[in-house]
Amino acid sequence: MPPLTARYWILNSPLLRSMFMSITAAILSIGTELTSGLTVDTNSAHISTRLAELGIVTLRHVTVGDHVDDIAAAIAAESVGADVLVISGGLGPTEDDLTRQALAGVLGVELVLDEKVLEELTLFFERRGWSMNPTNRVQALRPAGTETLANPVGTAPGIYARVGKAEVFVVPGVPSEMRTLIDLHVLPRLAGKAGSACLVFRTVHTFGAGESAVGAEIRDLMHRSANPLVGTTVADGVVSIRVRAAAVAKDQAEKLADQRVEEIRRRLGKLVYGVDEETLPAVLGQLLRQRAATLSIAESCTGGWLGKLLTEPSGASDYFLGGLICYDNRVKRDFADVDEAMIAAHGAVSEQVAGAMAQNTRRRFGTTYALSITGIAGPTGGSGDKPVGLVYTALDGPTGLRLQRNQLPGPRDRVRLRSALMAMNMLRLELEDSTRK
Amino acid sequence: MPPLTARYWILNSPLLRSMFMSITAAILSIGTELTSGLTVDTNSAHISTRLAELGIVTLRHVTVGDHVDDIAAAIAAESVGADVLVISGGLGPTEDDLTRQALAGVLGVELVLDEKVLEELTLFFERRGWSMNPTNRVQALRPAGTETLANPVGTAPGIYARVGKAEVFVVPGVPSEMRTLIDLHVLPRLAGKAGSACLVFRTVHTFGAGESAVGAEIRDLMHRSANPLVGTTVADGVVSIRVRAAAVAKDQAEKLADQRVEEIRRRLGKLVYGVDEETLPAVLGQLLRQRAATLSIAESCTGGWLGKLLTEPSGASDYFLGGLICYDNRVKRDFADVDEAMIAAHGAVSEQVAGAMAQNTRRRFGTTYALSITGIAGPTGGSGDKPVGLVYTALDGPTGLRLQRNQLPGPRDRVRLRSALMAMNMLRLELEDSTRK
Repeated sequence: MPPLTARYWILNSPLLRSMFMSITAAILSIGTELTSGLTVDTNSAHISTRLAELGIVTLRHVTVGDHVDDIAAAIAAESVGADVLVISGGLGPTEDDLTRQALAGVLGVELVLDEKVLEELTLFFERRGWSMNPTNRVQALRPAGTETLANPVGTAPGIYARVGKAEVFVVPGVPSEMRTLIDLHVLPRLAGKAGSACLVFRTVHTFGAGESAVGAEIRDLMHRSANPLVGTTVADGVVSIRVRAAAVAKDQAEKLADQRVEEIRRRLGKLVYGVDEETLPAVLGQLLRQRAATLSIAESCTGGWLGKLLTEPSGASDYFLGGLICYDNRVKRDFADVDEAMIAAHGAVSEQVAGAMAQNTRRRFGTTYALSITGIAGPTGGSGDKPVGLVYTALDGPTGLRLQRNQLPGPRDRVRLRSALMAMNMLRLELEDSTRK
Repeated sequence: MPPLTARYWILNSPLLRSMFMSITAAILSIGTELTSGLTVDTNSAHISTRLAELGIVTLRHVTVGDHVDDIAAAIAAESVGADVLVISGGLGPTEDDLTRQALAGVLGVELVLDEKVLEELTLFFERRGWSMNPTNRVQALRPAGTETLANPVGTAPGIYARVGKAEVFVVPGVPSEMRTLIDLHVLPRLAGKAGSACLVFRTVHTFGAGESAVGAEIRDLMHRSANPLVGTTVADGVVSIRVRAAAVAKDQAEKLADQRVEEIRRRLGKLVYGVDEETLPAVLGQLLRQRAATLSIAESCTGGWLGKLLTEPSGASDYFLGGLICYDNRVKRDFADVDEAMIAAHGAVSEQVAGAMAQNTRRRFGTTYALSITGIAGPTGGSGDKPVGLVYTALDGPTGLRLQRNQLPGPRDRVRLRSALMAMNMLRLELEDSTRK
């Protein structure tokens, strides 16, 4: 062993820990689909992020398969090393769902039937006109002396227990149910107890430049020992800048984080489209709503993906009327009035066709703006002068037609998603520019 | 603790383990960006999958932050419980890269400079015309008595060591470098030793019934000690059955797995739509192509999601012509010819409107089939007799119109995705039925 640090002694003594550190957590994920590598565990990262909002530092993530003794051994070990243990998975109705049994084993108690949960389960099925399978009854069991955490969005309620000094929360492994129970039970119960250091996270989202170009503008803010700590990540063509501010009080940490976000915004200008939960579709929707403008679309290679993204925000019907999925050229001709001669002369993937799709869709739908996309998503269909990844996006609006030619790298789905984001970004920039004037 | 199973004793005894089980592994990921939740760990799943090809069963994934004592404690603990320990991360040149130091601490040895690695590092930078930062020198250090694993694609070489009876491999955390070193060093070194068992995985995908209903049909196949081992998982409304077969030779394991897949198919009948990489859109596309049939769609609440899914397979233009995104009622009227009086009488979310959308779209696009979706995705827009989650799907085709009323649980995006899947599944069943006749 290396020379043991002060941190080691602090972490391993509940007394020292309570004096010197914020509350610590371990996260345990259950499932042979995870240990075998068939599924990537995204729950642990989500739970860590949410706990950090309370200043709770996650020390370890552990994943074990669907074996009752492995689960029990992990619960016993991890509940010694941390103040909070959050367990996800193994609460389903089938034979390989064994978290209840393992927890009961660690506690040395029997499983008992929670009559109230059984009643709610029965109602859950009745409301949907389904008959409840007898195996679902097992989901109303919990170790004696523990508490049930109600699950309004599924059939697996969570469990709250104390194992030694640790507070243990068990939530379902289905990500949407996990998230609901974290919001509804885990965070509220822990909110009051978190210690001194408070962490606040912000994420600034940009679109239109690569990670290295974005990084070059904020290099001096990215020192590893800086507070706030600043780093970049990329996902689906969106370059995001993470800001983590630490302070004794939450409002101080928030102020630090917000100041850094403002500095990043100032440097990156119109590359920035939003912060934290602000998505490109939501920001675009807000801009359209503010201007009482409406939108229609015509998409070819994206096949509906642009429309899917635009309708992610609830209330999109305020500005989004609908559109045409012109996958086949006959649909471009019959519904988007694209001249067959134009397609013959320039090809379906051309500036001319993209422009006609946007202009004709705007006219036929009677909207303020229309966006169009036509391209070659691949892997087949490319040629010498029109390679895979060539995508035209067009925007028609009150000030005329704008066209963009893009040559996008990567596999089919990446080209498609990037195309839809680029079309949305064209309209965002247009709306932001016209607002500024 | 629950009563300890035979498996527990076998796993915890190297002697029994070597007699009864295939080689076992633990995987340790290093990085505070992982424990804090900023980055999702995808390395562990990849490594597990690759080890499984050699018949090595991964028992645990563990993640710890960039703290030398946490890393050392995890190395010490995990190398007792498994035959192989693969560690990824913490080999970079910066202050928070501490895996080398932790491993040296566990082994009770000093770090020594590997002159050959230093030379290669210097060359690596020279070839790229970069000057080597002095901090990169640390990447030429390894614990005394361990071996260097050359890294042809980056500056962080890996390390091979023995800790107690466990073989320990350290590889970089950068996914592309990790994958290269797994291929180049880890798998070849383990290939000869993996001993008897070879594992083969299959996944059977179903749509249309809940996890408990699917589980009830295959309960007797799901014994925890069965070979093949069978378990269920749910994601996005799809219930999948995992099959893991173990045998001495790969072809034996494959035969076992395939026989079990056939048994599952026989029991679950038309609930099963595919195996392994077969997605619902791909299977549906194959059925349409076989029958030289074409498809158009009209979608309201899904806003394009159905089209996006249908165009995921390359070559979807063989059967998918396109469709209408009828988000606003004016688009339902003007493009899908839905009578305004019908909308006024029954509402846009009604059997009548869903039926008209499918019939008129099929006629206007001239396709063999047309699918339509209209519903209330929420969270707003619901009412007493038409609650959030009420979705009508319709299919019009040569044998007439089919309608389905669904009451779907969950948040907006779940309702939308499930609606699109249900529409596709209606058509799959129709095509499979007509093929059987």
